Amino acid sequence: MRKQTAELIEELKKENIDIYIISDMDDHLSEYTGKHFHALKEFSGFTGGDGKMVVTASGKALLWTDGRYFIQAEEELKGSGIELMRMGEPEVPILNDWVKDNLKAGGTIGFDGKCVSYKYGKAFEALINNNVNGGHIISEDICGRLWKERPAESCTKCWILDERFTGKSASLKLTELRAEMERSGADYHVIASLDDIAWLLNMRADDIPCNPVFSAFMLITKAEARLYIDERHFVDNADKLPGPSADADYLRGIGVDVYPYEQIYDDIKKLDKKVLLDTDRCSYEIVSSVPEGIEIIDQMNPVTKEKCRKNPVETANLRIAQHKDSVALTKFMYWFKKQLGIEAVFDAKGLDKRSNAESGISEWDCVEKLNEYRKEQPGFIEESFSTISAYGANAAMAHYAPSPLPEKTVRIKPHGLYLVDSGGQYPEGTTDVTRTWSCGALTDEERLSFTLTAIANLRLADERFLEGTSGLLIDGAARDVFWRHGLNYNHGTGHGVGFCLNVHEAPVGIRYKAATIDGAYPMLEGMYVSDEPGMYVAGKYGIRTENLLIVKHDYTNEYGRFMSFETMNFCPMDKSCLDISIMEKRDIKLLNAYHKRVYEELKDDMNEEELIWLKNMCSAI
Amino acid sequence: MRKQTAELIEELKKENIDIYIISDMDDHLSEYTGKHFHALKEFSGFTGGDGKMVVTASGKALLWTDGRYFIQAEEELKGSGIELMRMGEPEVPILNDWVKDNLKAGGTIGFDGKCVSYKYGKAFEALINNNVNGGHIISEDICGRLWKERPAESCTKCWILDERFTGKSASLKLTELRAEMERSGADYHVIASLDDIAWLLNMRADDIPCNPVFSAFMLITKAEARLYIDERHFVDNADKLPGPSADADYLRGIGVDVYPYEQIYDDIKKLDKKVLLDTDRCSYEIVSSVPEGIEIIDQMNPVTKEKCRKNPVETANLRIAQHKDSVALTKFMYWFKKQLGIEAVFDAKGLDKRSNAESGISEWDCVEKLNEYRKEQPGFIEESFSTISAYGANAAMAHYAPSPLPEKTVRIKPHGLYLVDSGGQYPEGTTDVTRTWSCGALTDEERLSFTLTAIANLRLADERFLEGTSGLLIDGAARDVFWRHGLNYNHGTGHGVGFCLNVHEAPVGIRYKAATIDGAYPMLEGMYVSDEPGMYVAGKYGIRTENLLIVKHDYTNEYGRFMSFETMNFCPMDKSCLDISIMEKRDIKLLNAYHKRVYEELKDDMNEEELIWLKNMCSAI
Repeated sequence: MRKQTAELIEELKKENIDIYIISDMDDHLSEYTGKHFHALKEFSGFTGGDGKMVVTASGKALLWTDGRYFIQAEEELKGSGIELMRMGEPEVPILNDWVKDNLKAGGTIGFDGKCVSYKYGKAFEALINNNVNGGHIISEDICGRLWKERPAESCTKCWILDERFTGKSASLKLTELRAEMERSGADYHVIASLDDIAWLLNMRADDIPCNPVFSAFMLITKAEARLYIDERHFVDNADKLPGPSADADYLRGIGVDVYPYEQIYDDIKKLDKKVLLDTDRCSYEIVSSVPEGIEIIDQMNPVTKEKCRKNPVETANLRIAQHKDSVALTKFMYWFKKQLGIEAVFDAKGLDKRSNAESGISEWDCVEKLNEYRKEQPGFIEESFSTISAYGANAAMAHYAPSPLPEKTVRIKPHGLYLVDSGGQYPEGTTDVTRTWSCGALTDEERLSFTLTAIANLRLADERFLEGTSGLLIDGAARDVFWRHGLNYNHGTGHGVGFCLNVHEAPVGIRYKAATIDGAYPMLEGMYVSDEPGMYVAGKYGIRTENLLIVKHDYTNEYGRFMSFETMNFCPMDKSCLDISIMEKRDIKLLNAYHKRVYEELKDDMNEEELIWLKNMCSAI
Repeated sequence: MRKQTAELIEELKKENIDIYIISDMDDHLSEYTGKHFHALKEFSGFTGGDGKMVVTASGKALLWTDGRYFIQAEEELKGSGIELMRMGEPEVPILNDWVKDNLKAGGTIGFDGKCVSYKYGKAFEALINNNVNGGHIISEDICGRLWKERPAESCTKCWILDERFTGKSASLKLTELRAEMERSGADYHVIASLDDIAWLLNMRADDIPCNPVFSAFMLITKAEARLYIDERHFVDNADKLPGPSADADYLRGIGVDVYPYEQIYDDIKKLDKKVLLDTDRCSYEIVSSVPEGIEIIDQMNPVTKEKCRKNPVETANLRIAQHKDSVALTKFMYWFKKQLGIEAVFDAKGLDKRSNAESGISEWDCVEKLNEYRKEQPGFIEESFSTISAYGANAAMAHYAPSPLPEKTVRIKPHGLYLVDSGGQYPEGTTDVTRTWSCGALTDEERLSFTLTAIANLRLADERFLEGTSGLLIDGAARDVFWRHGLNYNHGTGHGVGFCLNVHEAPVGIRYKAATIDGAYPMLEGMYVSDEPGMYVAGKYGIRTENLLIVKHDYTNEYGRFMSFETMNFCPMDKSCLDISIMEKRDIKLLNAYHKRVYEELKDDMNEEELIWLKNMCSAI
C-alpha cells in the first residue's frame, strides 16, 4: 500500500472512522484549485483532473474516476494497492452505493466537510438516515493532519480593477446586492464563491493559477459587509500588479470590514435571522454551520445572476481585450503555417494546393510561441487556462495537456489536424478561443468533421431569439447539423465566461439537456458565452472551432425583445480544411462575412508578410 | 354587493377569518373541473377559465384574472361590488402581495386547502411566517357551507380499458410502480392526480367532461393498494359503456381494495414511514396531512413519468384512432369548403382561383357537423375538449368558445380565415388537431402568417435528435422561422397528450423557456406530443396548424440513440393560403411528402366527390 494511504488507514482506525472520502475540491468549490487542496494527489498518487478516493479502516482504498482518466489512473495507481473504480462501467457501483453496501452497522463515514458541496455531504447524511443500521457522519480534515509537507494556501496580493473596466463601483454593487437581499426577505447573506466575491469588490489577485481570484468569504447584512480573508493579501510590496493594490483603506471606502478567514464558520453559527445562501455554491460545512431553526433562503447568489450579464462598459472593454487576443492568435497562426511550410494557395474552387515540407515544431513549441505573442499585447496578465495544443489523435482527448519535457513532446507532422484552445486574462476581460488547422493532407472524414464544426459554429452565432429563451434551445442551432449526420459531440456548445475572471462562469450555458433548472438558464442581454462545437474521434483526430459571443439587443417590438449575438474575436477559420460541397448557401455567406470582418479588424496589426497571407486566408469562398 | 358574496362576508365575520381566497381548482388539481368545484363562478359570477377571488371580513371582494378575460370579467362583474384586479397591469399587485399588505396584525387567512396546490398554500404559510405581526392559516371550505344548490360531485360509471388497447395489465403496472417505490426508498406512495390513477388501473369513467377519469385517491404500500372512491362508480346498470364495467371483482383481481373517498386524509395522518408524494400533484391538504417527522420523498409520480411514454401497443392503437379522426376531419373539411362555395383550383404556380360565393354556415354549425363526422367513427367516445371553431378575429382569442345560441352565433363570410381545433376520445387513444382554412380572399399578412406556421409545423416534425434532448431545444425548430421575421406566438409549441385520457398530459412539453426543471423535461422514445405553432393578431385573425407526433427510435450508433418524429394524423393543410415565395426548397419537399401521405392514408375512406377534391388538395406544389 502507498505509504500515505497506509498512514491514513492507521489514523482512521485510531479515530474510529470506518469509511473516509477524499475529494478534490477546495473550500469554495472552485473548478480549479491550489496545491494546498491536492490531497487526492498526495494520498493516491493520481494526478487526473477529476476523482474521489474512499479509504476504509479495514484497509481498503478505492479511487473513482471517469473514462477520460482510465489509462492515466491505471499507470499512476500501479503498485499503490489502490483499486481503480472505472465509473460508468457495468459492474462498477457508484461511490455512494459502495459506501452504503460496505458501511457496518452503526459505522462512521468521514470527509472534510469544507471541501465537499452541501449536496454531496447531504447525500451521505441521507444514506445514514435511510440505513436501518444507523451510523454517523464526521466532518474532519484527517488528511490535513497527516500531510506533513502540505503546500501553504495561496496568498497573493489583491489589486483593484478600476471602474473604467468594470463599469460599476463596488459600493454601487453592494447597494444593489442589499436591494436583492431585501426583495428576498433575507437579513444575512453568505458568499463563498471566489469569483462572486472578486466581482462584487472589484478586486482581483492570483490565488489560483489562471483564475485571478483570492481566497475569502463574505457575510453581508443591511449595515455591514464582512470580508473573511488572510490579511497578507494586502501586504504592500514592490511587485508589479495589473492594477493599484487593494488595501484596508480601499475596503473601508466601500464599507467593507476585514475579519480573519476562519472566523466565517463561527460567525455563521451565530446567525439569528434569515440568511440568503446558495447551497449550490457553499460547502457542507458552511451550510451545516447555520443554526437549527434559522431559515435558509436557498437561491442562486444575486451576484452570480448579475455578474454573468456584462454591462456596456464591460462589453466595450471586451472588444479591446478580444482585439488584442485576436492579433496574438492570428500572428501565431501565420507563424504556425509558415513552420509547417504550408502556403495557403487556393484555386478558384477553394481547394488547397500545398507543399508538404517537414515541420520542425512540437506541441510545446506552439504553447510557448503563442504565449510570446500574447505577452506582446499591452496589459496581458496571464493565460486564462492552460493552453491545449494538440496534434492529431491527441486533440481527441478532452483534457489533453501537452508535455513541456523535450523527450515527451509531440512533434507536428505535415499531415492531419492541429488544435489549439487558449485564452488570456486582460484588465479589459477574459478570452477563450479554439482553432483547428490543417498541417497538410487531410482525410475525407477529417474534412467532413471540420466542415460540420464550422457550419455549427457559424449558425449558432447567427441565431435570433427572444430574450429569456433557454440556452437549451440555442444549442440546437449548432448541434442540428451533427445530428442530421448521425454524429454528436459529448460536451455543451457553450459556457459563460467571466470578466477578467474565471474562464468558466455559471450559470450561462448552451447545452441540449439539463439535470437542474440552472442548466436551462435563460439567455439575457449582455451574457458572454462561448460557441464551441467540435468533433472527436478517439485515436484519430479532434476538431473544435470556438468563438466568444455577446448577447446583444437587436430590436423590440410588440412581440418582445429580440436578441442576436455579436461575435467578439477574430481569427481565420482554416478554409483549406473545408468540404464546401456540404455547405448550404447560407453557411458560405456567414463564413465569408466573418472572414471579411476578421480582415478588417486585424489588417492594421499585421506586418507586410502577415498581411498578404491574411488577405488570402480571409478571401471569399 | 352580489348576494352570495355578501353572505360569504357575513360568514367570515362569524368565523373570524380576515381574508378568504376562493380558487378555481378541484381536490385533484385537475385542469378541467366538474360543476361541483365552480365556487368561483357561484360566488363572483365570473365564468372565465382562470381566476381567484379574495373576500375580506371587512367587506371587500376582489377578483384576479389575466388579460385573456379582462373584457369578459368587466361585463360579468358589473354591479356585483367585486373589484376586478387586472393581472399584469402596472399598478395591480399580485394576489399574495395584496393579502400581505392588507392582513391585520395577527390576522387569519383562509382557503379550502383541498382545492389549492401544496405550493400555493405553502406560499401563504410563508407569508404568515415572514410577517412581523404574525397570523394564522385556516384551511376550510367556507363556500361549501353557504352554497345551497351546489351540484353534487360527478359520479359516473367506471369501465375497463382492455389490455389490447393499453398494452400492459394493471397488475404489471402496479408491480413496476412498487419497484420504483423501492428504488426511491419509499414505504408509502400517495397519488391524487386522476389521470395517473386511471392509467395505473386501466380504468376510465366520465367524471369530468372530455376527460375520461374518475374522482379517486390511491395509497400504495408493498402489500396493499387502496383506492379511495365513491362506490357508486361501480353500480351496474344498463347504460352503454365504451368497455366492460369495472367492479370490485376487477379491482380485487388486480390486488386493489376500495375505501371511502374522504378516508384518504385520515389514512395519510396515520402514515408511519417514508412516503413518496409528488407535491406538484397533491393539494395543500393532502401534503399537510402527512404527520410531522415523516419524510416526504418529493418526486414526480412514477406513473406520470411512465404514462407519457406510449408503449408499442398504445402506439399501434393511436395509429387506428388517428386514422378514424383524420377521416372525420377531412370529410368535414370537404363539407366546409363546399359550403363556402370554394373549389380549390390551383394553377401551375399553386395560386388559388376561387369563386367567392356567400356562405350559409356559422361557427356553431361547424362544431355540430364535425361532431357528426366523428360520431360516424366506430368506438368514438366523446370530444377530447370543446371544439374551438373560430372565424376571423375570433381565432385570435386563445380560449375562444363559439356560442351555440342562434342569436349569438357568428356566420362565416367568404373571405379571411377559419380555425378549427378539436379532438376525440377513442379506446385506441386521444386526438387533438388544428387546421386553418381560407374562406375566400386573404390579405398578404394572413398569407405570410399562414405560411410561417406551416413551415414551423413541418420543420419541427422533421427534427432529428438524441434521446434525452430537452423539449426546450426542440421548440427552436418551429419557432426560429417566426423569430427571424420578428414575430412570435405566446404559447408553447407542443404539449403531451394522454392515451384515452387528458388531452393535456404532463410532463412532456415543447417550449422555449421553463420556470422549473419539469419544463425542460427530456424527450424520450414513445412520447406523444403536439406540434402546434401559430400566429395571432388581435382584432384580425388567428392561425394554428397542429399535428400530433410520436417520438420514434430512428437508429443507434456509437453517438447514442437517435430519435425522429412520426406524424400521426392526416388532413390537408390548405395550400390555397400559402405564399410559396417564402418557403425554402426543404419546406416544399416536406409539405409535398406530408400531402402524399395524407392522400394514401385517406383515399379509401372518401366518397367519389371527396376523393377528387382530396387529390387536388394533396397535389404537389
